[in-house]
Amino acid sequence: MSIRIGIMGYGNLSRGVEAAIRQNPDMELAAVFTRRDPATVKVKTEGVPVLNESEILNWKDRIDVLVLGGGSATDLPVQTPKYAEYFNVVDSFDTHARIGEHFANVDAAAKKGGNVAVISVGWDPGMFSLLRMVSDAVLPEGKHYTYWGRGVSQGHSDAIRRIEGVKDARQYTVPVQESVDKVRNGETPEFTARQMHTRECFVVAEEGADKARIEKEIKEMPNYFADYDTTVNFISEEELKAKHSGLPHGGFVIRSGVTGLDKEHKHIIEYKLQLDSNPEFTGSVLTAYARAAYKLSKEGMSGCKTVFDIAPAYLSSKSAEELRGHLL
Amino acid sequence: MSIRIGIMGYGNLSRGVEAAIRQNPDMELAAVFTRRDPATVKVKTEGVPVLNESEILNWKDRIDVLVLGGGSATDLPVQTPKYAEYFNVVDSFDTHARIGEHFANVDAAAKKGGNVAVISVGWDPGMFSLLRMVSDAVLPEGKHYTYWGRGVSQGHSDAIRRIEGVKDARQYTVPVQESVDKVRNGETPEFTARQMHTRECFVVAEEGADKARIEKEIKEMPNYFADYDTTVNFISEEELKAKHSGLPHGGFVIRSGVTGLDKEHKHIIEYKLQLDSNPEFTGSVLTAYARAAYKLSKEGMSGCKTVFDIAPAYLSSKSAEELRGHLL
Repeated sequence: MSIRIGIMGYGNLSRGVEAAIRQNPDMELAAVFTRRDPATVKVKTEGVPVLNESEILNWKDRIDVLVLGGGSATDLPVQTPKYAEYFNVVDSFDTHARIGEHFANVDAAAKKGGNVAVISVGWDPGMFSLLRMVSDAVLPEGKHYTYWGRGVSQGHSDAIRRIEGVKDARQYTVPVQESVDKVRNGETPEFTARQMHTRECFVVAEEGADKARIEKEIKEMPNYFADYDTTVNFISEEELKAKHSGLPHGGFVIRSGVTGLDKEHKHIIEYKLQLDSNPEFTGSVLTAYARAAYKLSKEGMSGCKTVFDIAPAYLSSKSAEELRGHLL
Repeated sequence: MSIRIGIMGYGNLSRGVEAAIRQNPDMELAAVFTRRDPATVKVKTEGVPVLNESEILNWKDRIDVLVLGGGSATDLPVQTPKYAEYFNVVDSFDTHARIGEHFANVDAAAKKGGNVAVISVGWDPGMFSLLRMVSDAVLPEGKHYTYWGRGVSQGHSDAIRRIEGVKDARQYTVPVQESVDKVRNGETPEFTARQMHTRECFVVAEEGADKARIEKEIKEMPNYFADYDTTVNFISEEELKAKHSGLPHGGFVIRSGVTGLDKEHKHIIEYKLQLDSNPEFTGSVLTAYARAAYKLSKEGMSGCKTVFDIAPAYLSSKSAEELRGHLL
């Protein structure tokens, strides 16, 4: 029998999960839930019902794992604890500063309901976390560096769109090659934010808008841009659509460490992602961890887990023998 | 209390484990065991006893995990099952074709003794396996490529040394850049062995030896060299010592996969290692998995495990809260 997946929400990430389920023959999409009028939502998988979020508890026995496709700012802090009481759940919560609090809330709910909840899954947090953690354990004396890009940051693009006079915008996060080269070469400097990444903005201004003011507001925006070298390019709506409509992303985690009695040997571990579609890759990671949640739940586990707590074999549809035979 | 580690054997890998233990404050080296006369073995850690292998069972209550530093050809197939009955053990068994058999033997012995045995730990098998497996689960439609080098293959160097007239030798395995570029570019060709790696040999011939015959024997050696483009350089003993005495290695695993309803998006996952010292890095991985074996055993687990079966958090000396706070 297939693992029956429910998806909460139907934005970019949820559509990435939907596409990933079709690549995993041991899974099926059981239902999609939305806050909108279900009649207005058309999913891509034939025969899959779209329901209002209010109906979800009627699906308790027809869904093995609920994947939460919402955002970290307002959706997941409410939804993940709420639904972990009734379903095995997986989310992509990525507000680093609030992970401790989120973990505690979700853990209590999941334990109360006897379910497995996996939080903060995706590529960062997620795959990058896994690599940072394992590399830290293997090379305990060293430093790690995380670079994002070149790729579209949806958070930064949204921040630009909120500026008066901006019609649309796309922001690329770009690693500073000089700093990357140093790290790959085994140097372990302390970098400022500015030394590691630059920010490239492509902005469509509304007619008659004051471009100089927009550029200034972007470059001086605290947290998002003020600490970076930022370039702002005003382009037409047509050019934005033609050249910047995809959501590519990626990045790399580097662990630079030493071994030896005199710490005389250097080692560089690098994990790199080049993603044509950020939401589809993130959705693929969520889907693999949905399988893990299902298997752990079948074994009688409950509570909140992160990528650190789950043995890799749980992610795979392959048997232990197949994994040892072909991938070890 | 520290995790008390015993090491079986005192070759390059065991010395790598010894050095790694010193970088892990929650561990101590309890004893080193050898088949040689213990009086002839000087370890680098002060106060650590060196004992003959025959005394090992007297140490049952003074060792938490025994790390087996021996080779896959003859040592580990005997030692790992033998000692898994009495100790938690970790080995670096890397004969891919015999992993199934080794796993079964070790699993039976470990279960009989109520111990945890972790086999095939290191970078390949080990870290590379972990990355192949996780990437296969995340991107189920795709291909993976494993490249080794540029680095010293000890197996290939040994094979050259067995040829008549060869005094010493060092063999470097080198990825073929053209093939690497194709894979990084998202192409997914089928490669022959020759298309992925070349082999560079540095050979010290004995005085008066027939160099042409040696070169021919190397290049035609089945399994080791016949399927590769191999270059043979005869050098002096002094040059070998000066330029080729280190044991650097490394390599990379690439997973190239697609997502999307029409499989229209490409994704490249790459995990890369650049290691100044192969045995010290491998020893560091073994040490992290020794910690995992200890923790799993404390939780009452037993039997044989691979990197696929162990949740990443078990590798770390840090608490779950620290890991979530700093590395997620």
